Formats: sequence, structure tokens, C-alpha cells
Amino acid sequence: MRSGVFPGTFDPVTEGHLDLIHRSRKVLDRVVIGVAEAHHKDTLFDLEERKRLIESSVGNLDGVQIVTFRGLLVDFVLEQNAEVIIRGLRFVSDFEYEFQLALMNRRLKPELETLFFMPSAKYSYLNSSVIKEVARLGGDVSGLVPPAVVEAMRKRYAE
Amino acid sequence: MRSGVFPGTFDPVTEGHLDLIHRSRKVLDRVVIGVAEAHHKDTLFDLEERKRLIESSVGNLDGVQIVTFRGLLVDFVLEQNAEVIIRGLRFVSDFEYEFQLALMNRRLKPELETLFFMPSAKYSYLNSSVIKEVARLGGDVSGLVPPAVVEAMRKRYAE
Amino acid sequence: MRSGVFPGTFDPVTEGHLDLIHRSRKVLDRVVIGVAEAHHKDTLFDLEERKRLIESSVGNLDGVQIVTFRGLLVDFVLEQNAEVIIRGLRFVSDFEYEFQLALMNRRLKPELETLFFMPSAKYSYLNSSVIKEVARLGGDVSGLVPPAVVEAMRKRYAE
Amino acid sequence: MRSGVFPGTFDPVTEGHLDLIHRSRKVLDRVVIGVAEAHHKDTLFDLEERKRLIESSVGNLDGVQIVTFRGLLVDFVLEQNAEVIIRGLRFVSDFEYEFQLALMNRRLKPELETLFFMPSAKYSYLNSSVIKEVARLGGDVSGLVPPAVVEAMRKRYAE
Amino acid sequence: MRSGVFPGTFDPVTEGHLDLIHRSRKVLDRVVIGVAEAHHKDTLFDLEERKRLIESSVGNLDGVQIVTFRGLLVDFVLEQNAEVIIRGLRFVSDFEYEFQLALMNRRLKPELETLFFMPSAKYSYLNSSVIKEVARLGGDVSGLVPPAVVEAMRKRYAE
Amino acid sequence: MRSGVFPGTFDPVTEGHLDLIHRSRKVLDRVVIGVAEAHHKDTLFDLEERKRLIESSVGNLDGVQIVTFRGLLVDFVLEQNAEVIIRGLRFVSDFEYEFQLALMNRRLKPELETLFFMPSAKYSYLNSSVIKEVARLGGDVSGLVPPAVVEAMRKRYAE
Repeated sequence: MRSGVFPGTFDPVTEGHLDLIHRSRKVLDRVVIGVAEAHHKDTLFDLEERKRLIESSVGNLDGVQIVTFRGLLVDFVLEQNAEVIIRGLRFVSDFEYEFQLALMNRRLKPELETLFFMPSAKYSYLNSSVIKEVARLGGDVSGLVPPAVVEAMRKRYAE
Repeated sequence: MRSGVFPGTFDPVTEGHLDLIHRSRKVLDRVVIGVAEAHHKDTLFDLEERKRLIESSVGNLDGVQIVTFRGLLVDFVLEQNAEVIIRGLRFVSDFEYEFQLALMNRRLKPELETLFFMPSAKYSYLNSSVIKEVARLGGDVSGLVPPAVVEAMRKRYAE
Repeated sequence: MRSGVFPGTFDPVTEGHLDLIHRSRKVLDRVVIGVAEAHHKDTLFDLEERKRLIESSVGNLDGVQIVTFRGLLVDFVLEQNAEVIIRGLRFVSDFEYEFQLALMNRRLKPELETLFFMPSAKYSYLNSSVIKEVARLGGDVSGLVPPAVVEAMRKRYAE
Repeated sequence: MRSGVFPGTFDPVTEGHLDLIHRSRKVLDRVVIGVAEAHHKDTLFDLEERKRLIESSVGNLDGVQIVTFRGLLVDFVLEQNAEVIIRGLRFVSDFEYEFQLALMNRRLKPELETLFFMPSAKYSYLNSSVIKEVARLGGDVSGLVPPAVVEAMRKRYAE
Repeated sequence: MRSGVFPGTFDPVTEGHLDLIHRSRKVLDRVVIGVAEAHHKDTLFDLEERKRLIESSVGNLDGVQIVTFRGLLVDFVLEQNAEVIIRGLRFVSDFEYEFQLALMNRRLKPELETLFFMPSAKYSYLNSSVIKEVARLGGDVSGLVPPAVVEAMRKRYAE
Repeated sequence: MRSGVFPGTFDPVTEGHLDLIHRSRKVLDRVVIGVAEAHHKDTLFDLEERKRLIESSVGNLDGVQIVTFRGLLVDFVLEQNAEVIIRGLRFVSDFEYEFQLALMNRRLKPELETLFFMPSAKYSYLNSSVIKEVARLGGDVSGLVPPAVVEAMRKRYAE
């Protein structure tokens, strides 16, 4: 059995994330979605809300778990008895940043392998920051994020 | 008649921006310079000052208007009865960011087209952040920004 | 009235090209598709065949003409009384090559402007070489090129 | 059980290729090295020689097979009862080309997933063309290719 | 005699920086490490601490000086009677940013030349931000920064 | 005394090359222009003509020599008693190729250092292939190549 961790802030989860979760689940027996605390930036949703919004979309998916974590990613991956770090690649700028992280993680724990998946082309322009900006200004983001996230953002920005 | 919106923060306007305004005006009958509120970052100049500094350079140009806006860019473009979003491309990193924005805007309003112009090579290294940093440290930025902007930055950093 | 030239080898024309033709026609009054002789590389289809395959797709489109040319692109653009060169941007590697060409063309004829359009995301991975390779090996390329091109490639590779 | 195909021309196999084979074998139960015919370019070694040079390095590796193929990669992957295409990513220019291929392959067979692995940083500058050029000019390439390949290139260039 | 300035924030100095210092010293007679004040961002170590941590590694190196500075880099380079600005290039994203800075510096003082060095491949994934993040979370960064920096970060994060 | 080799095919030399020669000569005591045989591609001018065209531009420059070479670049650099390889960087695509070459050369001879210079922005779009294509089609390339090269290309393409 092979397990992988798909780490991220998920503030909030997008359809692009969900696409990668389904793709990686086809290749690995177990996928742990690792929701990072993100102490160093202000998030729109707190750690438990971000976890809950992912659960509302893929909480019942066989072989998929959603776990929050603090600390180093590689330590979390080992705690989860996983051997693989799952990442998506959309753009060249993604690529270089991901490369740096993957090389650092390999240095910290050479036994872990980083696997890169390519999301569906229709999600390649999605990122959580742009989606939040559009939602904040009243633009329609349905289809880009799950319905529960559309609703949660609507409420948050109405506050 | 075809109209386009050239959106930006313009904090402050540079000679690179002016070059793009002239180029786009050759291709379109009407160019609206859309000065964005930029709520999410601290600007050196406030919205009205940024508008005024553009006016002092291209305020009298036939077929060019300067309008401030809040909210989604695509809504502003439609309000202005324009069909085109005007953007400049200088560098690869520009390119990817612009691509993401243009794909999101196309999703929001498929009837709008984003047009990319290439600035003069001599302005390809200009960006407002670098210019402000140089001006703040006392470097000479004349020739990179219009004279009114040189003067406005001089006053601001002397405060 | 504003006219643009969309130059290329079109060996063969793809749905990505057609997408750009429709987009540019929305912004310009007249679009001339300039089919280049391509003396320096072996083409699958000769100059007249390449022209004919484009005609079978957009030959009846109002404001669109298809013209073959030899020699410098900028001379052809001026002969056609056009002021704009139309190009598509899909990838970073496109971008740098296109930038070099556009700067050289600007040097040769500063009065011409190069306009970059972004194709539909679903065509962003298309290029004629990959399509020909897939067709040669018997892969299905319908939907990526117009039906007349599917048929022409089928015949050519059966020879 | 999960299987993947690692396709390439392997003209000749390098230590970078071997590194990727070992990494992918850790994640997949079975790795098929697909040696492509490469009809469209002159190779230094013919198809059988290229296969033999890979066999001399990883021929005895458990769960690894070496198979030559003609035709479309995706057809070969399905014939091998594999679900995954294995690719290495070293550089940005790699990335864009690989992206185009992966998107085309996904269109041809949506059930296949392309997985990208990151080679060891010490092999990131290796490619078969540069190695052949250095060997042809008498440079020392031991450590970059397996010993059997060093010897085979020495003989070939002495001819 | 030729002199160069290697500017940076050095918050903190890494093995990658030290590698570039040694490489540039082979080509230039005198290398001045210019430690910038970095007024616009919060640093982990203050200006004097950053200088001291560099001194503990290369303070005794012949032909190498460590000097703090405020204000424009080009003014500092001239004050130091240097003709060259030393920069390292690791990644494409580095490249574009460095290009913009170098072109701006050339405009301010055309007599200065920017020289780009390539660090050892094993340090290409290092940057001070990633190292600080790993150290903060308790990861082992020895080998990536000099021993004095390992110790200084350990103390700082324990506070 | 420090010496560097500026290698290339120079088919033909451009104003961009000359700009780099002058810049590198300011930093190094002696610059050897290494004209490579280029056995693997058809050149417009043969080896001796390419050397002669460089001589007509910088043949009298103090501290600059022009030498043809065959074989590995690093062997030639050592034969010339040089310690530095001089390269220009214009674009991102340059950067990755140059990086691969520099890492390979460092592996072959670790004592040699590759130095990258940035050409004047006005030459950043120049490359010999584009210039030859423009000249062949009758475009004006004066200002992009030295006068002797304009004349030599005119004669060659009239043949």
C-alpha cells in the first residue's frame, strides 16, 4: 500500500485542488490532505473551517483523509506513514517554487519522493488568492470552488 | 468604434505606462485609463493624486479618458462600453500573472477580449516599485516618469 | 478602419488558429491571414494546399482574407495596408520568441504594432508539429483541426 | 498493482535516466522502460543497441522491464496494462514541452495519468545531446552515463 | 586592481552566499560584501548581527571586506571604488528580477558592470527565507548555513 | 592578470557580440574571442571568414585576440591560459541553456569560472539567425551588425 500527503493552506479549497485529489487517488492507495496551520499569513478561514470545507467536498471519498498539521511537512508525512508528497504544477512560476521546496524536503528526508500531477487545463488559472479577490468584489466564483465554499465566502464578505 | 480599458494602480504612472497608452490608442478609437482603488495595498499617492498625475501627462490626448474605479475590472469595462482590456507584457513573470488574470476575466465576461501590447524595449525594466525605491533613496528617476511625477515623489519623500 | 495580418505557416491550420482569427476579427475591421512560403523547412502541405485548407474553414468569414506571401512579413503587412501584426501567446517559450520577432519587426517598421491575443485555454497545448506527429502515428486529431484537415492528413499519411 | 511506462529515445541512457527509474520504481509496482523508435531523427545507437545499453544497467532490477515500441505512446501504455506515464522535470523549458505532451496524451486517453518526478539535483544538467557532443570531442563523461555507455560511445566515435 | 561589491540583506548568510564569495574572489582582486540595511522588511537579525555572522565565516579571507550600507547600491559601489556588482543566478525567477535591477543600476551609473556568477548546483535551492522557515519549525539546517548561523538561529527561535 | 574566453560561432558577429566584448574587456585584462568550428551545422560564412569579420571590427582593440578552435571549449580555455568563460544572457531561454553548458563545463574543469554579462537592452533581441533571415529577405540590418558584415551578407545573398 502506498500513501501520499497533499499539503496546502486550502484557504479555501478550489475545484483545482479537488481535481488533483482525485487524480492522485488513482495512483496512490491512500491520500492524506494535510491542512497547514499557515501561522505566517492571515487566512480568510481559520484552520478548522478550512478543514471542514474540504470535508464537505471529499469527506466521504474512500482512501482520502483530511488532517490538520503544524510544524515541518516532512515530519507530518512520516507520522502519517506516507512515502510521497503530492503537488500540482500549473505554471512556470509554480515550477520553480515547487522545485525549491522539493529539493529542500529531499534534503531533510531523502526517503520521501515528491510527485507532481498536472491539473485539468480548465483549472490551470485558478488560485485561491485570485478567487478570494473576485468573490470579495462580488464576482461569481461558482464552478471554481465547491458550493459550500461559495456560500462560506458570501457570508464572510457580507460581514 | 472600438474602446479599451487600460487598468492599473498607477502609483505612480511611468513612461512605460504612457508608451502603452499611445500604442493602444493607435489601435483603438478610445482608451479609458482605469485607475484602480487598490484597497489591499498601501499606495504612495492616494486615488485622486494618482489620477491627477496621469492627467498632467495625457489629460489632453484625444480619445483618452482617465477614470477611477472600485470593484471588479470586468464590470468597469462594461460600464465604460468597452470591449477590450489593454495590458502590457514585459517579462516572463508578467506573462504568467497576466495570463491568469486574462483567463479569469474571460470566464467572468467571455465577450471581453484582453489585448497584450509590447512596450518599447527601453522601458521594459521599469516598474513602479523599483522607481519608488530609487526615488526614496535619492536616485535620479527623471526620464523614467513624467516631470510632474518626479516632482511629486521629491515632495513626498522629503516629508 | 483598422486591419491586421495574422501570419504563419499554417501547416496545417488548427482549431487554435481559427480561435485566434475569430478573436482578432472582433477587435479589427479586417484580418488578413498571411500564409508564409516557409522556404526553409519541409512542409507537409504545399503553399496552395495550406491556403485552401484555411479557406475551407474561414473562407466565407466577413472581413477575413487569405493571402500567400514571400519575403519580409513587415513588407507584406504594409502592402496589405494593415497597421497591426496579430500573434497568439500560449506558453512562456512562445513569449520569448514572439518578443524577439516583435522587437525586430518594430525596428524594421516602427509604425506597425504587434498585438498579442490569448487563445482559448482548451487550445493552449496545440501546435501543428505535435498534431502532425499524432496523426502520422494514427492518433485521432478530430476536434483539434477542422474536418477538412483531418481528411487531408489521413490521405497524406496513407500515401 | 500499479504500473507505469517511462518513455524515451535513450540515445544513450544517462545516469539521470537511471535515477528516475529508481525513483519511480519506489512509487509504482512495475516500471516499463519504453524505448521509442525515433524514426524522425538520426540516433547514435540503433533501437536494439539502445535497449541493450539500458539492460546492462537495470536489466536485473526487480519490477523493471525494457521494451521497444513504435507508434503512439498512449497505445503502448495501454498495451502494457499500465495506467501511468512517467516523466522527469529538470528545467523550465522541459516543463512547457512536457506540459504540452501530457495534455495531448490526456486528450487521447483521459484514463492515463502523467506523473512527474524530480531527478537528483546533480543530474539536472544532463541531457543526451550534450553528453554525446562532449564524448565526440574527447571529453570525459564517466559518472554521467553508465560504464557500458562510456565504452560504447568511445568505440562509436573512434570509428 | 579590480573590485566588486556583493550586495544583499544576508538575513542570514548561507553556504550559497559563501560559495559565490569564493567564486567572485577568484575573478576579482577585492570583494566587498555590502550588507544592506533592509529598512522595508522585518529581518530576523539586525544589521550588526548580520554583519557579524558573515565575519565569523569569511572575516579572515584575504581581499574580502564586510561593510554595511544604507542608500542606493550604486552610490555605495562608487564609494568603495569598485567597478563591478556581483550577483548570483540560480533560477529563472532570479534571472528576471536580477535583470530589472541590473538595467536600472546601469541607467543610474553606466560605468558599473553587473557580473553574474552561477553557484554550485548543490546550493541552487537555498534561499534565506526557506532556511529560516525550516529552522523555525525545528528542521536541521546544518550544512546549508555556517555553524555560527545554525547556533544563532537556534537561540533566536528558542526565545 | 586575468584572461577570459568569449566563445561562439559568430556566424556572423553582431553588435550584441561587440557590446559584450567591450563590457568583458573592462573587467578582464585579456579577452580571447574563440571562434568555434561548428562542424554540426551549416554556417553562412566559413571559419576564416567569420574570424576575419570579427577582426574588421575589434581586431585592433588592446587586450583582445581572435582565435579559431576545434574540440572542447574547456581545453581551448586552458590552452589560452584563461580562467574565465564569458557568456551573455539576454532571455530566459538563453539562461537555461547557458546554465546547462556552464554546469557541464564546471564538471569537466572545476577550476574555470563562467561569468555572465548582460548586453545593452537595445541588443537584447538580436540573434544571428534572425539577422540572417532578415538580410536574406532584403531587410535592412545596418546598425545590428558591423558595416563589414552588412556588406558580406549582401554579397553572399546576391550569389
